[in-house]
Amino acid sequence: MGSQLDTIKVGKKEVWAYVTACITSFNSGCKELTIRARGDAISKAVDVVNSLERSFLKKIDIKDIKISSDELEDGDKKIWKSAIEIRIAIS
Amino acid sequence: MGSQLDTIKVGKKEVWAYVTACITSFNSGCKELTIRARGDAISKAVDVVNSLERSFLKKIDIKDIKISSDELEDGDKKIWKSAIEIRIAIS
Repeated sequence: MGSQLDTIKVGKKEVWAYVTACITSFNSGCKELTIRARGDAISKAVDVVNSLERSFLKKIDIKDIKISSDELEDGDKKIWKSAIEIRIAIS
Repeated sequence: MGSQLDTIKVGKKEVWAYVTACITSFNSGCKELTIRARGDAISKAVDVVNSLERSFLKKIDIKDIKISSDELEDGDKKIWKSAIEIRIAIS
């Protein structure tokens, strides 16, 4: 399986778009997924996991949650952006 | 120590307001704190922890991160809201 299926990056789309992406990955045989988001999308990433738990038929296990701070270059200056990684698995 | 110092609820204020609240708690002798947030404030809660790590002199350990989905009543209907709890400690 290609590693591109392993990570879902949450950005500007609606929550259901990412939920659908997760379900598609799981249905194609993937057992574990990482959901990543930065900045304002962090709240949406948590919504994705919770919506998935409510809508998907199988039990979702939250394996790990990591938060970090990424240093980005914005023109001349450096800015910090918070990030989250949620590792989920189906049993 | 009163248990009210133990939990910081992140809401509509600026990030620095919650960072200051955490530092005040730690400086008054508290060793562990829980930072909670719901909905859009989840991203801000992660910002608070990251800003605290950068600005506070002591090392911050992230003990645990939990996400959940709270059921709220909004008039007649029930709505789900995502929530996060980040447990931090100073060593």
